[in-house]
Amino acid sequence: MNDTYRNFVNSPLGARVVRSLGLPQPEVLRRYRIGQREAEFGGIAAIGAGPAPSLFEVLAGVLERIGMTSVAHEQALAWLAIAQRRQSMSGRFAPVAPNASAQERVAALIFDATGIADSLQLDAAYAFFHDTLRSLGACGRIVVLGRPPERCAHPRQWTAQRALEGFVRSLGKEARHGITANLIYVGDGAEDGIEATLRFFLSPRSAFVSGQAVRIEAATIDAIDDWTRPLAGRRALVTGAARGIGAAIAQALADLGARVAGLDIEALHDTLSVTMHGIDGAAIDCDIAAPEAPQQIADALDAMGGVDIVVHNAGITQDKTIAKMTADAWRNVIAVNLAAQERIDEELLSRGTLRDGGRIVAVSSIGGIAGNVGQTNYAASKAGVIGRVQCLAGGLRERRIAINAVAPGFIETHMTAKMPFALREAGRRMNSLSQGGEPGDVAQTIAWLAHPGAAGITGQVVRVCGQSLFGA
Amino acid sequence: MNDTYRNFVNSPLGARVVRSLGLPQPEVLRRYRIGQREAEFGGIAAIGAGPAPSLFEVLAGVLERIGMTSVAHEQALAWLAIAQRRQSMSGRFAPVAPNASAQERVAALIFDATGIADSLQLDAAYAFFHDTLRSLGACGRIVVLGRPPERCAHPRQWTAQRALEGFVRSLGKEARHGITANLIYVGDGAEDGIEATLRFFLSPRSAFVSGQAVRIEAATIDAIDDWTRPLAGRRALVTGAARGIGAAIAQALADLGARVAGLDIEALHDTLSVTMHGIDGAAIDCDIAAPEAPQQIADALDAMGGVDIVVHNAGITQDKTIAKMTADAWRNVIAVNLAAQERIDEELLSRGTLRDGGRIVAVSSIGGIAGNVGQTNYAASKAGVIGRVQCLAGGLRERRIAINAVAPGFIETHMTAKMPFALREAGRRMNSLSQGGEPGDVAQTIAWLAHPGAAGITGQVVRVCGQSLFGA
Repeated sequence: MNDTYRNFVNSPLGARVVRSLGLPQPEVLRRYRIGQREAEFGGIAAIGAGPAPSLFEVLAGVLERIGMTSVAHEQALAWLAIAQRRQSMSGRFAPVAPNASAQERVAALIFDATGIADSLQLDAAYAFFHDTLRSLGACGRIVVLGRPPERCAHPRQWTAQRALEGFVRSLGKEARHGITANLIYVGDGAEDGIEATLRFFLSPRSAFVSGQAVRIEAATIDAIDDWTRPLAGRRALVTGAARGIGAAIAQALADLGARVAGLDIEALHDTLSVTMHGIDGAAIDCDIAAPEAPQQIADALDAMGGVDIVVHNAGITQDKTIAKMTADAWRNVIAVNLAAQERIDEELLSRGTLRDGGRIVAVSSIGGIAGNVGQTNYAASKAGVIGRVQCLAGGLRERRIAINAVAPGFIETHMTAKMPFALREAGRRMNSLSQGGEPGDVAQTIAWLAHPGAAGITGQVVRVCGQSLFGA
Repeated sequence: MNDTYRNFVNSPLGARVVRSLGLPQPEVLRRYRIGQREAEFGGIAAIGAGPAPSLFEVLAGVLERIGMTSVAHEQALAWLAIAQRRQSMSGRFAPVAPNASAQERVAALIFDATGIADSLQLDAAYAFFHDTLRSLGACGRIVVLGRPPERCAHPRQWTAQRALEGFVRSLGKEARHGITANLIYVGDGAEDGIEATLRFFLSPRSAFVSGQAVRIEAATIDAIDDWTRPLAGRRALVTGAARGIGAAIAQALADLGARVAGLDIEALHDTLSVTMHGIDGAAIDCDIAAPEAPQQIADALDAMGGVDIVVHNAGITQDKTIAKMTADAWRNVIAVNLAAQERIDEELLSRGTLRDGGRIVAVSSIGGIAGNVGQTNYAASKAGVIGRVQCLAGGLRERRIAINAVAPGFIETHMTAKMPFALREAGRRMNSLSQGGEPGDVAQTIAWLAHPGAAGITGQVVRVCGQSLFGA
């Protein structure tokens, strides 16, 4: 959990040593901390756009509500009239000097690419980031808004929108300084459903999410009265909640107002009790792989009045290369990481324990995307999780239930702390942020997907990996 | 082009040094060489299966035609009756001793997973590879046959089939010794269309393709009389054909019997002439980014009687981080790598120059998938190429035209030979085969996609990267 290299780099001497040797320079990321109710948003957003941007009105409304001011790039001057109408502070973008202070820099670069209909019009995206990237401060945010390629009527539009993915991923790799870059594909009719997602990507909650392309489709979204407690009145189940990432998820959901039932194995009863006590939640002792588990869990949740949010976090590893792997190691990992999720969801959905309008978030892994040595069982289970999410999303739309997966990369936990030094260092540094993530980074990403405002996001996989170099 | 480290590792002294230090041990890959007409196939395939394998008959036919014998794993004994009926040599699989010679080892592990309908049934895949992987020889082949998850009716089946992706990718990373591992998702009704693809993945032609999942859908496939010249009577256009990967593509297509028109810029006229002379092809001097290029190209091809195979290989790089990139560098790369492809295809398709039943293969890049520092322009263009392929596939089905992309990873060319040593070494070694690919590896992959027997593959991206660690 202790990244001594990052601490060294951010000391005055360390910074000089590291710069002169050309070593990675991990920034201390600005994160949202539960209990620290300092201002989540602030600063200036620089706005750019291709031809015919369609999200300026919605975007201006969001920035106004979260208290960010704005400046418009010369190719996006239409922004000024919109900002002015809202009496929102705005002006023209001007580059800062190379030695500008943090306060002088902009906090976010937001580019509306929704009107780009031809690859030659990608010029506008180049021009905006060419002019503005060096003016973005540390831990700044890059957000590009586009249209889902597969929903574009014309091949040239589809092609240009798809091109944005390679562009944003490259920006994420170039930006450094704790900056993240993400792409939001906004479907027709989903324009009003982007606020929760914009807030997530503009806030410190998304500190370790970069290089992602997220699709939002049209969905009914209930009005959100209190953005600090959007989950008030909702009930959540978190499996594997005693410690580590699971405990962080339970805490993040509770922080947003949810009543959380945390589940873990009997052997972790005491740890789970302490974790759940801290958030006024309920503890369920249960081995999710046991035959009777789905019914037990559904019974317990029904007794609480049902559940709105199910987070499948519990997972195990039993690593060995396949020639050395025992049949039990194979079966245990598939049973806990994959089959248990299937059986629990079948029970919760068929009984109606998971209520309409609810959410399922399943934890996958970069290993499930890319495969990994010694993890044929784990990678199969985590790839299967992606299959579940992609499969179930369609059928659950009529019940307004969204199902998504998060795929963590290198997250600093008790498990990674035990890794050999060289392997741990490689895992930590080989991403755009040159450091590992924290359990809270995964938890906040799940909390966003569980948010009532994220109803339009379903069937997707979001990596929480600091834009890990690894993939497939 | 000269991998001195690989050569060292494969010398008697080098092998000892490298083993004792735990360094990467790149195998000298067995490759198909144009002009060397030695036996492409041979050896023993070990056959495994989950419950209710549906491809045994087809598979047995293919193995018989390519001259491979077989052994059946204990969970796949139904294979024996099928092999016997064909009077094909077969028997039960028995593991070889650790010090077994190359001749004693099996050449391929083929697992029919098409009947797997539940994640618990993945057990059979574990059991097969657990028992057999150590008996697979150097440069052996792992092929897993499944059903496209998105076509599975039941969620548990979808999930289990999707799980295979993580499993095969892990196998690819574990196997080493020049072994490749790939997954073929065979659609309903596509069973008879797998021969060209099986031949590719079992042969030395696929030496640098690993960790890929390829989908085959039902398609009309003309009988193939001569597997050594399946492109006889077909005409092909290859852009950027003067040298490097483009020249290799032209040579590979000509080797399979195609009449090739190679295109390149005027400045490479002499080089192009020599290349095309060597394969009895036609040379077209043309700058594909010029406004009149699409019409010029279509005119030239129409004069030859039209074209059946179009390979968009021409591409350029003009690397700089975005703040330092000039507008011209942006525009040139988009114009050549992406917009030119769009304009040429529009012309060839609207005029009918590209004949029904034809093929388009476009060269993308790992950079277009993962993004890359200093390549916002290149990555955008190569991601756009993926968009084109995904977009156009649907509409072209009625004309029986298939369109696909290949995404090369680190390929040894004049360009990579100029890279700084450390960067080149990192690029070379960070894949499952611990070495760079050759232009011929990309060319053979394109030749497979251009094959009449690959009609059922469309809208897909196949990486030619030795299962590069890098991705998204």
